[in-house]
Amino acid sequence: MVATNTKEAARRSTYVFQETLTAQDIEQIHHRCMNLLQSVGVEFPNGEALDVFEKHGVKTDGSRVYLGEDQLMKALATAPKQFTIHARTPHRSVTIGDGRPAFAPGYGAPFLVDPDTGKRTPTMEDYVNLVKLAHALPNQDMSGHLLVEPKGVPAGTSHLNMLYAHMIHSDKPFIGSAAGKRGAQHTMEMARILFGGDVGDKAVTISLINSFSPLGYSPGMLEALVEFARVRQPLVIAALMMAGSTGPITLAGVLAAQTAELLAGIALTQLISPGTPVVFGSTSTNIDMKSGALAIGSPELSQMIAAHAQLARYYKLPSRSGGALTDANYPDAQAAFESMLSLTTTVNSGIDFVLHAGGILSSFLAFSYEKFVLDDEMCGMVRRVHQGIAVDEGTLATDVIANVGPGGNYLMEMHTVERCRKEFWRPDLCDRGGLEAWMQGGRQDAVTRARARWRKLVAEHEDPPLDETTVRQLSEFVEAQTACERR
Amino acid sequence: MVATNTKEAARRSTYVFQETLTAQDIEQIHHRCMNLLQSVGVEFPNGEALDVFEKHGVKTDGSRVYLGEDQLMKALATAPKQFTIHARTPHRSVTIGDGRPAFAPGYGAPFLVDPDTGKRTPTMEDYVNLVKLAHALPNQDMSGHLLVEPKGVPAGTSHLNMLYAHMIHSDKPFIGSAAGKRGAQHTMEMARILFGGDVGDKAVTISLINSFSPLGYSPGMLEALVEFARVRQPLVIAALMMAGSTGPITLAGVLAAQTAELLAGIALTQLISPGTPVVFGSTSTNIDMKSGALAIGSPELSQMIAAHAQLARYYKLPSRSGGALTDANYPDAQAAFESMLSLTTTVNSGIDFVLHAGGILSSFLAFSYEKFVLDDEMCGMVRRVHQGIAVDEGTLATDVIANVGPGGNYLMEMHTVERCRKEFWRPDLCDRGGLEAWMQGGRQDAVTRARARWRKLVAEHEDPPLDETTVRQLSEFVEAQTACERR
Repeated sequence: MVATNTKEAARRSTYVFQETLTAQDIEQIHHRCMNLLQSVGVEFPNGEALDVFEKHGVKTDGSRVYLGEDQLMKALATAPKQFTIHARTPHRSVTIGDGRPAFAPGYGAPFLVDPDTGKRTPTMEDYVNLVKLAHALPNQDMSGHLLVEPKGVPAGTSHLNMLYAHMIHSDKPFIGSAAGKRGAQHTMEMARILFGGDVGDKAVTISLINSFSPLGYSPGMLEALVEFARVRQPLVIAALMMAGSTGPITLAGVLAAQTAELLAGIALTQLISPGTPVVFGSTSTNIDMKSGALAIGSPELSQMIAAHAQLARYYKLPSRSGGALTDANYPDAQAAFESMLSLTTTVNSGIDFVLHAGGILSSFLAFSYEKFVLDDEMCGMVRRVHQGIAVDEGTLATDVIANVGPGGNYLMEMHTVERCRKEFWRPDLCDRGGLEAWMQGGRQDAVTRARARWRKLVAEHEDPPLDETTVRQLSEFVEAQTACERR
Repeated sequence: MVATNTKEAARRSTYVFQETLTAQDIEQIHHRCMNLLQSVGVEFPNGEALDVFEKHGVKTDGSRVYLGEDQLMKALATAPKQFTIHARTPHRSVTIGDGRPAFAPGYGAPFLVDPDTGKRTPTMEDYVNLVKLAHALPNQDMSGHLLVEPKGVPAGTSHLNMLYAHMIHSDKPFIGSAAGKRGAQHTMEMARILFGGDVGDKAVTISLINSFSPLGYSPGMLEALVEFARVRQPLVIAALMMAGSTGPITLAGVLAAQTAELLAGIALTQLISPGTPVVFGSTSTNIDMKSGALAIGSPELSQMIAAHAQLARYYKLPSRSGGALTDANYPDAQAAFESMLSLTTTVNSGIDFVLHAGGILSSFLAFSYEKFVLDDEMCGMVRRVHQGIAVDEGTLATDVIANVGPGGNYLMEMHTVERCRKEFWRPDLCDRGGLEAWMQGGRQDAVTRARARWRKLVAEHEDPPLDETTVRQLSEFVEAQTACERR
């Protein structure tokens, strides 16, 4: 007996996505974007990047690059519509761009929030716990990379410790380090150890290249971009433009400006190595006009997610946006409803790669174990909604309805009994025990249940099998490189 | 200066809704539904209803009614696609079916949950507080009716006290009483006092008629249906079929069965008075297969909402479904993410009338002041997302982007300054103060802030002006009818 409430496989090519822009809106944004690329240009402060553009006849002036529409569209045409990030355990491999959203944990939080202390500084032990949790949670497709910024580890080499943790404690695909040229090189050297030699054109990781809005890239990010594109490893080129500060206050203006900077970066990847897997990314949103702070729990974020997904389809590129995002500082009702709004918009809009699918609080400043577990439950729910309703002879159940008739009950029908174990989505965390049981059980809230769940998952963690030689080689590599950097 | 981030008015006719069923799925469901109506029939245990069906040549057998497809479709054709529920203050009137979702508070909870005591029994004072809160909250379009079931008021006449509270403490449109023939008659008599005489064909309320699934209606509900339809007052005909107990375990089967029972009820309204405003309603969902309890926080609910909205468009009927629904017993993260999932699905799917848009906990068993306030904030966010992004010369801001150039900042640009007060949605409750301020402010959670907000709103409430004669007449009517019922 198979659950019949889903028709995911059949639907992948026929999804009806949530849309916010008309076809005319998209044409207008595209047109402005092409004008900006040609007349204003984008900053690429990196000699190798500039050489590549010049070699392909693209006009440059200092570090400013001016792409013509034909040059740009020709470069974009070689970017694949979908690609697979291979895991060391093959069934864990993740395909980006096939209509099924890939979920990856939060990225880059400098702080942790826990129910006892509130804000605190994450340690390497926290980092390892979070890697184990990302491995255990059923709806995270990727292991992640910069879950939190661990203190007590030298910043210059912490990417080595982080990569090691993902490779040892998880066999889900990991995100690479974009800490300049060295971060990229270390990622690939460790990946070659993990995969047992030259990985060739096989994508074994994916890395995040952020633009420097408006209309530029930082030198360090360009180093990583060039390095990964040379070996054709997947890249997410992403903007976080803030409407009202690093971008225009109007969302249409942000779409035009960020699309220009993103497409220029994507063009670079294709000019370096045509066919490099690349994802068109955005978490651009507004600022709160009272405080000037980034607002990632806002409805404007969700509007931007839906619009960005449409533009990605227009340019035939896989997309990244959204996640479970909030400005709240605790996994409370605000955190949950803001996160659900952005997450469900992300999936309903057809976004392919969903970074920040778990754990983020405080406008990206903090990570929470409890929220990670709660968000993962949300990921499961949202994915289930997206899978749709199966309509066929068996599910229409006409004979059963006729037999039961008016006023009857379906509980003991064979049609019910046969399907009762698999028909519905099952919560791991959500309480459906009812009001009386909740009163009698000490009125536990969701954070209390989430805390018990992550502690159990971390306590029960076992590293997925990996041969001793590989473990030793990875460990030796990390030690050698760390020693080398300290000199 | 007008906020340019929305294009609601222009978009109402061109929304791209979230969809879950294919056109072929809908045809299959329709076909099965017609078969069920013709061969299994629907129970209408009410003499007047049966007389109406018979008078129009519909086959009956005892209380069972068998509608042919032609008879049904002919009856449905007279139902209006949109209609207005008039408020005593004209700008408060609400149009149902114009693409803008109308939000109304939770309905029918026997208990309250508060942060101090957990579950408790609501009093008439709570009821009045909730009416005042529904009046104050900016995103509730309607005042509601059975917000909670107040204790300490005789059950047989409590609808009189409730109607009085809505008429006195709010000038938003109210929901009528469906407590049998008397409930309907009292609603209309009080409405005539409130509106100063015969209301004619003008819709001055809307009432909820629930089907008795599977495939039937209860005698009391039919009394109210007949009474309201005779005076052409709007009705929501709604099913709450539970997949696995009162409906088939498969959602497609539920859609076929509930659509049959709903369309039969809608046909009756049109046979009584062609043109009676009527809404095609559903909050059908699954049961939790572990506990057998209703699961309104489930992803299956959201799948049903989206499918129901599509069927409503197929039959060219205004729709009701969803709301801010949860199985959690406290306004915690679970309550918030379940509620946001159903609410945003409701709006994105194009549902017209959104009952339960605020306050519901515990699978409909409880109401919460705090959750009401939190849900209202969600309503504002979801509506804003739905309004879309304005794309035009001003918002594309091409000149501004060119002037600011790479690496610049938009904060002091005239384009920003001119729009900074109105461009973005502003939270009433969501904390965007940042992690440090939260730590220093005693780590307040969303429930604490919601509690402060509802207490302030209730304390500051002032009844909207109503002339003394009307107030006295309403009061005398309630007293007289209450005395009459006690005899």
